[in-house]
Amino acid sequence: MARMKVLFHVNETERWQRALLNIINFINDAGQENVDIEVVANGAAVSAYADRCFSPEGSCRAAADCGKANENDIIDQMPKLAEMGVKFAACRNALRAQSLDENTLPSFVTVVSAGITEIARKQAEGYAYIKP
Amino acid sequence: MARMKVLFHVNETERWQRALLNIINFINDAGQENVDIEVVANGAAVSAYADRCFSPEGSCRAAADCGKANENDIIDQMPKLAEMGVKFAACRNALRAQSLDENTLPSFVTVVSAGITEIARKQAEGYAYIKP
Amino acid sequence: MARMKVLFHVNETERWQRALLNIINFINDAGQENVDIEVVANGAAVSAYADRCFSPEGSCRAAADCGKANENDIIDQMPKLAEMGVKFAACRNALRAQSLDENTLPSFVTVVSAGITEIARKQAEGYAYIKP
Repeated sequence: MARMKVLFHVNETERWQRALLNIINFINDAGQENVDIEVVANGAAVSAYADRCFSPEGSCRAAADCGKANENDIIDQMPKLAEMGVKFAACRNALRAQSLDENTLPSFVTVVSAGITEIARKQAEGYAYIKP
Repeated sequence: MARMKVLFHVNETERWQRALLNIINFINDAGQENVDIEVVANGAAVSAYADRCFSPEGSCRAAADCGKANENDIIDQMPKLAEMGVKFAACRNALRAQSLDENTLPSFVTVVSAGITEIARKQAEGYAYIKP
Repeated sequence: MARMKVLFHVNETERWQRALLNIINFINDAGQENVDIEVVANGAAVSAYADRCFSPEGSCRAAADCGKANENDIIDQMPKLAEMGVKFAACRNALRAQSLDENTLPSFVTVVSAGITEIARKQAEGYAYIKP
């Protein structure tokens, strides 16, 4: 099977659950070694990267601090997915709009100057676009 | 006009109306003979394929059984669109999550191992992506 | 940087704010001279083009007439973005469904026979697809 490149666009906080579940199912189906996955978060969705949820090293905070549904929320899968090669990007404009300091984001998050530019560039590179 | 290939991604039950209306308008505009259309349903949206809505042969059940808005709901257009060449796919992970037995789905539905893999593959084949 | 082509698909009225903000941020980031941007509105979203919001020449009406949040609503940026080269298209089927007379739309709006055909055609021409 040819290598598959997929970009997930998340711009609403409540879509993270679905996006992460989609990614896990996709990796299980296609195989970690066959996929290049990038998640671009803009709008309110960047708040899921905040330091109330993750330490700078990327470990998960308690649900009471983060606003997660429970201690085993799927949001806790982010660091593990990042270790498996999934790239997580945050739009700088959105971080500013949410008053989030990009220096406090977990290390697995890359900040891009504008989410839309990143999404357009990746599609030009052959990435499929998916809006969970 | 060059042949047009379009993939529709439906992951919420309430988006079916819009998706099917989009497809009907698209076929009317571009011509049935000029289009390749595939619908990939994942998440909760796979429930629209359930046997409470369609018999195994693909005929429509009564609204009272299906949860359709009325007896002439647009969901009833699915079998006719399938006959016109529209492909309807269901994500196996989503069917399991909704406790739907894939053996009871109408014959016009194809089950794919993972919806995201199918969507990525179709885009790699030149299909446009549309999220209704 | 290579020229970037991006299509924005807006099918819900409440998504316009986000779409226009995305476009402004994208132009600021990539540079007006480096981007080709088209917005295709279908479904209920075409109502934002209505003559209660814009005169035929494309100037903005008062918020009380338009249903805008306030006098400096981001919807007022449409004419300026159009002058900067952003193309705004409306689906004819959607205009009819909303009982909007296409002859009363502002001059910066182009009517297309079907929104989905336009979106598919643009992606075939190399436009990235974004659903705000």
